[in-house]
Amino acid sequence: MTGTNGHGFGERAAEADRTDPLAEHRAAFLDPPGGDVVAYFDGNSLGRPLAATRERLAHLVEGAWGTRLIRSWDEGWLAEPTRLGDRIGRAVLGAAAGQTVVGDSTSVLLYKWLRAAVAARPGRTTIVVDPADFPTDRFVAEGVARELGLRLVPVGAGDDGAVALDGVAAVLDQDSAVVLLSHVAFRSAQVADVAGITAAAHRAGALTLWDLSHSAGVVPLQLDRWGVDLAVGCTYKYLNGGPGAPAFGYVRHDLVDALRQPIEGWMGTADPFAMGEPYSPAADIRRFVSGTPPIIAMAATEDMLDVIERAGLPAIRRKSEALTAFVVDYFDAEFAPLGVRLASPRDAARRGGHVTLDHPAFRQVVAALWRRGVIPDFRPPDGLRIGLSPLSTSFAELHTGLTAVREELVAALG
Amino acid sequence: MTGTNGHGFGERAAEADRTDPLAEHRAAFLDPPGGDVVAYFDGNSLGRPLAATRERLAHLVEGAWGTRLIRSWDEGWLAEPTRLGDRIGRAVLGAAAGQTVVGDSTSVLLYKWLRAAVAARPGRTTIVVDPADFPTDRFVAEGVARELGLRLVPVGAGDDGAVALDGVAAVLDQDSAVVLLSHVAFRSAQVADVAGITAAAHRAGALTLWDLSHSAGVVPLQLDRWGVDLAVGCTYKYLNGGPGAPAFGYVRHDLVDALRQPIEGWMGTADPFAMGEPYSPAADIRRFVSGTPPIIAMAATEDMLDVIERAGLPAIRRKSEALTAFVVDYFDAEFAPLGVRLASPRDAARRGGHVTLDHPAFRQVVAALWRRGVIPDFRPPDGLRIGLSPLSTSFAELHTGLTAVREELVAALG
Repeated sequence: MTGTNGHGFGERAAEADRTDPLAEHRAAFLDPPGGDVVAYFDGNSLGRPLAATRERLAHLVEGAWGTRLIRSWDEGWLAEPTRLGDRIGRAVLGAAAGQTVVGDSTSVLLYKWLRAAVAARPGRTTIVVDPADFPTDRFVAEGVARELGLRLVPVGAGDDGAVALDGVAAVLDQDSAVVLLSHVAFRSAQVADVAGITAAAHRAGALTLWDLSHSAGVVPLQLDRWGVDLAVGCTYKYLNGGPGAPAFGYVRHDLVDALRQPIEGWMGTADPFAMGEPYSPAADIRRFVSGTPPIIAMAATEDMLDVIERAGLPAIRRKSEALTAFVVDYFDAEFAPLGVRLASPRDAARRGGHVTLDHPAFRQVVAALWRRGVIPDFRPPDGLRIGLSPLSTSFAELHTGLTAVREELVAALG
Repeated sequence: MTGTNGHGFGERAAEADRTDPLAEHRAAFLDPPGGDVVAYFDGNSLGRPLAATRERLAHLVEGAWGTRLIRSWDEGWLAEPTRLGDRIGRAVLGAAAGQTVVGDSTSVLLYKWLRAAVAARPGRTTIVVDPADFPTDRFVAEGVARELGLRLVPVGAGDDGAVALDGVAAVLDQDSAVVLLSHVAFRSAQVADVAGITAAAHRAGALTLWDLSHSAGVVPLQLDRWGVDLAVGCTYKYLNGGPGAPAFGYVRHDLVDALRQPIEGWMGTADPFAMGEPYSPAADIRRFVSGTPPIIAMAATEDMLDVIERAGLPAIRRKSEALTAFVVDYFDAEFAPLGVRLASPRDAARRGGHVTLDHPAFRQVVAALWRRGVIPDFRPPDGLRIGLSPLSTSFAELHTGLTAVREELVAALG
């Protein structure tokens, strides 16, 4: 209980930064000229660019695109969806090669993967979903259910609102075709029991489709070990691929041959430039690709994978837990007395890389924070979401930002 | 009949370059350090980068992404699919605002647009297609037909193999839901009669879906005037958006409200960050967007649109016709005697921006040409495709490349 804010958080932040084994990696991120951001709490929504990305894009424009030109398709680009997919699988997903591709938006991949999964369970009539899941997951599932005449079955939430194994198991039956859930909840950061829920789904004869957007790159994943069937996720959050960078999708090796996705474009064939007929899907994971790979949009993620591989996901997770624990402790000391509610788990093992705090004044508070360069997210109805990308965020930045949140909240409360 | 090659093509090329009103624009394209390309005949497949694109991407990484960060979604990115769509509509498509969006690959857009069109013609059971269309168009149509229980009806080809109004009209009937065709054929460059075929389709009660990949940016388009219903097209060909840059899609204004596409993601709602439920499509063209806009991948096309707007599409088309006429004349003088066949129309008005020549030796010839920095495309079974992007190609470059083709063909013929 020392320091100017009365609880010693400044000293704790300084000490945590001094002993942070990942501190060196912060220098790899672009330090923008004239940057006005004093605390960025949205690395879980749009990861910051690495300095190397600026050079990588210039090199791509001048080299593979500008100099090698169309020859680059033969010299590597055609293989990019699976090469980058394999790299994400190895570095982030706990997935052996041949099961991951990159391309399309997360929404489009969700559609393709969900359609493929439903088709693999003919006669089954329901998709199990989380009514509190991220909007695009719910919307895509609604659309697929409507077009195929299926029914959406909501999982029961636990006492704390989280998706729990019990709540999923309670709704699984012989009608269940697919269970579509997020690993880490976009709002609360609650971590779902992927292995347990997947096993329960399998006992009921259903497939699982996991959205890993809020865990890939910050929470270690073991898709192969957990027996996951299908998964998708963003590359522009903790994988720092840039705004709208294409999603990754995982299909377990023994399902690759068995599944067929609905958007049958030329890049999903074994030899796209054979230009034959009719459509004949590639025998491998390439069959899940539809159109021309978005080469420029796939580039930036490589730079973050370089850093993730150097740092190691276990160390990233340790720092992530320390960062979010700092928020929880600060909440107890400074926010709870002001009527703020903690909307994320106290148990670090059940918490992903962000912390959400609820208060009716937060819509107004977030607007004021943005004006002073403190950038959390606002999530309706009254959530202030503090996303903490471990490789780019210092404890001092976290402390600065939390202090600003407190100041603006106090001001808003008049 | 002068000059070292016996037909004066070198002098003709030099004269054409001297009087080319678009010559100045060639300096806008990136001149790569160490570039080994002496003739690039694939600007119709992958347009060359503009020098401005390198700086635009660096600026995007440092500025909107690196400095403004998540705030950029509110400061412009959310509107990018429709803002860039409107710009393409105005500069290239002959389309008023509010009818064009950018996002997804061409294959994914084809799927979404075709599904939306078929759903708008309930009870009709066929899709009219060109059996010689680009593979992804055929494949996507096959997939949609199979999933919906529809039948594909091939158009009859004219004497010259082209898609003709008569051939389309002959197969249209009360079962026709959609006519899916390319404006400019990817192989032969034959130009279809968009207005005439669209009118015929309308008389039969069908909708049209045009693939403009090989015309957008080189052949003037008047989608609004022609009464086109739906269209899609690439931005990485004559719009120089870079490898795998996202496609554009057009929906005629009075159809926007009436159509619904199947991939209902959060970015197709009126207010994505409201995060409400259930899915409620935007009232405007945004409803055709599914996932997060691929901001970085959308950037480069802006630079080419700058040049196109300065040059003007009528002038671009005039130079395109002159370039392809040069190829036809060179063919008559140099290639026909060697047994080469002209696979593109002689009539410039019926020819798009490229010329395809057929000869059984061309697979081998193209491989040899690539090694010496002359880069045409090979299109099975035996086509050498000479794509000529008017803004980046000089007549001298064309002459150099044609001379090399002739040399390699003579060598191959022993």
